[in-house]
Amino acid sequence: MTPGILDGLELVEVSAFIAAPLAGLSLAQLGAEVIRVDQTGGGPDARRWPLGPGGESLYWQGLNKGKSSVHLDLRSPEGQARAAELIVQTGMVVTNRPDAGWLDYARLSERRPDLIMLAIRGTHDGQGAVDYTVQARTGLPFLTGPARGDAPVNQMLPAWDAVCGLLAAQGLLAAERRRRETGAGGLIRLSLEDCALWMMGNLGLLAEAELNAAPREASGNDVYGAFGTDFATRDGRRVMVGVLTPRHWRSLLEVTGTAEAMGHLARAFGVDLATDEGRYAARAAIKLRLAPWFQARDLAEIAAALDAHRVLWGPYQSVKELVADDPACSLGNPMFTRPDHAGAGRYLTPGTPLDFGLARDPARLRAPAQGGDTDRILGRLAAALA
Amino acid sequence: MTPGILDGLELVEVSAFIAAPLAGLSLAQLGAEVIRVDQTGGGPDARRWPLGPGGESLYWQGLNKGKSSVHLDLRSPEGQARAAELIVQTGMVVTNRPDAGWLDYARLSERRPDLIMLAIRGTHDGQGAVDYTVQARTGLPFLTGPARGDAPVNQMLPAWDAVCGLLAAQGLLAAERRRRETGAGGLIRLSLEDCALWMMGNLGLLAEAELNAAPREASGNDVYGAFGTDFATRDGRRVMVGVLTPRHWRSLLEVTGTAEAMGHLARAFGVDLATDEGRYAARAAIKLRLAPWFQARDLAEIAAALDAHRVLWGPYQSVKELVADDPACSLGNPMFTRPDHAGAGRYLTPGTPLDFGLARDPARLRAPAQGGDTDRILGRLAAALA
Repeated sequence: MTPGILDGLELVEVSAFIAAPLAGLSLAQLGAEVIRVDQTGGGPDARRWPLGPGGESLYWQGLNKGKSSVHLDLRSPEGQARAAELIVQTGMVVTNRPDAGWLDYARLSERRPDLIMLAIRGTHDGQGAVDYTVQARTGLPFLTGPARGDAPVNQMLPAWDAVCGLLAAQGLLAAERRRRETGAGGLIRLSLEDCALWMMGNLGLLAEAELNAAPREASGNDVYGAFGTDFATRDGRRVMVGVLTPRHWRSLLEVTGTAEAMGHLARAFGVDLATDEGRYAARAAIKLRLAPWFQARDLAEIAAALDAHRVLWGPYQSVKELVADDPACSLGNPMFTRPDHAGAGRYLTPGTPLDFGLARDPARLRAPAQGGDTDRILGRLAAALA
Repeated sequence: MTPGILDGLELVEVSAFIAAPLAGLSLAQLGAEVIRVDQTGGGPDARRWPLGPGGESLYWQGLNKGKSSVHLDLRSPEGQARAAELIVQTGMVVTNRPDAGWLDYARLSERRPDLIMLAIRGTHDGQGAVDYTVQARTGLPFLTGPARGDAPVNQMLPAWDAVCGLLAAQGLLAAERRRRETGAGGLIRLSLEDCALWMMGNLGLLAEAELNAAPREASGNDVYGAFGTDFATRDGRRVMVGVLTPRHWRSLLEVTGTAEAMGHLARAFGVDLATDEGRYAARAAIKLRLAPWFQARDLAEIAAALDAHRVLWGPYQSVKELVADDPACSLGNPMFTRPDHAGAGRYLTPGTPLDFGLARDPARLRAPAQGGDTDRILGRLAAALA
């Protein structure tokens, strides 16, 4: 592979599912050498959905691009010893398996005192948890979906896994920086649940629930605390429009020709529509007043008009439409290529979104065949030990 | 402040809303010195909801913990010159403003060739976009909410902002690592939309839409491609249960006493319930068979039984319940403290979820008063220039 930004960084991944593999993926795509180790025959996510037409896991391929894949019998003492040796040689490991037994930090660091291990757990006190179970606990499902709905609605994106995996990558980089400065390694713990609670706190949601008497309610597709909502178009499509600055508001009134009407509406409801608070208070009335403009036009006409006035908006579209029609999700976007994937053939595949102004390394654009690097990596390990 | 993991890392943030401030927050909580610069009087997110009882923005406080806050008149040449000088002195900047005019990388790097700038945009080609508009385009709202719903359901968490902010932090650390090795700075671009497309690709969703004829449908609160769903309890609560490994499945059958019944059910539907695929195919029938067990018990009894059998599960709860009742969201979790916040008083506040085994620095647990460090930082700048 050609040198990348993180040239020289080496990492073993003893991982499955999303968070830990995402940590390795994000680093691999910047040039780190990431060796993923799985049970011979494949780990618990080896055949995770979605599958391609030939039955390969598109999920596994997506999360393991740019890595090497090694299979070992991790249930046998020999396989565990080899995996431990690989970690000791490499000096850095990320895992979402229990950091105990052969994966115990104290044991491994006896053989390599500057070892860095980042161990992802379900909860801070070591209970099992996955995105779905953490999500239920956060309260967000009661804030998702129709206003005044009483049934929880799960968000479909495993967002907590994403936050956890990216924070893990950041923790590894921070730990490596410290190791370069001080020579010290260390065990870093991170729990999926803490990641969720951290983001809930960062967004003010925990403080709001603690300090304010009235609980927040679900608000459907409306933006909270400002004006933003969805509108139906004449041709059966739907768009999301957001107003986060005074300029956005002026643009929206201009393109819809409703500046004067909004003045009347402000007086009718006794609110100041120049502020986020006022627009949020009157959001239902604002939506009623604007809806006919959208309902009278097809999406193409709306898109042209909103873009001309620099309104902040986006079309709702299915994933199929995103892939088929959206120029951002095509080879026209320099992040994408269409490499040939083991078993699945060519499909549109993103490199890292971090654009350092360098060409993306073609060797880092696709996943290895599962277990396909076992002989090469173990041979190298044996040579190093000889 | 006491030394942190990222001791010596300095960063200017010219930012607003979530992604760019989150990049700085995640680094500040590991020990970086982060100076946030805003327009005098406050940037566009200075009073963003949720608000505390006194009207302060809990959102702003949440996203700016551990930083210094400087106010400058960025509309005047003098204010822009001071901000530019601060960036040149500091050597690293993250922004979600247009990187043009006084914030143009080429201009700034003339004065400091090893300057690192990470510039966050809406889309890769420089269009405006925010989480809401990007979310609409991803197709996820059509996969969220009731099965066979035709209306899109926005997820409430700004997950793309979170992914973007954490990738930005990773990009800054990677760039600083390269600078230490080679002396080179650089401009790194990152777009919110690319972050969303990247994660959609990482999860196999883009490939699935490209390769498979049948579009994926919304599946309500069910886990995709495995067995996982929500159940109602006798006392009107609800729990999320997930089965991601053979062990999870055995545990669930044990605690509910349904092993034999599931054998009959497998034969009735002609599926293999030992596999994710089989359990997904028969998920509605499995749910029907298990539901009475949950319906006959209160949450407390269910919790004790599921925990005793190590079933993967979580209770649905509101944010209010999370904050009031969940031990994970309390001072019992070492991530949390209850510092005194400007204007809002004491509330439960998370430090970084990355646990390096060190005490969290109390000075990094809360946000500054907006603009409160202006004189101190500008005085230091003037002294450095004298």
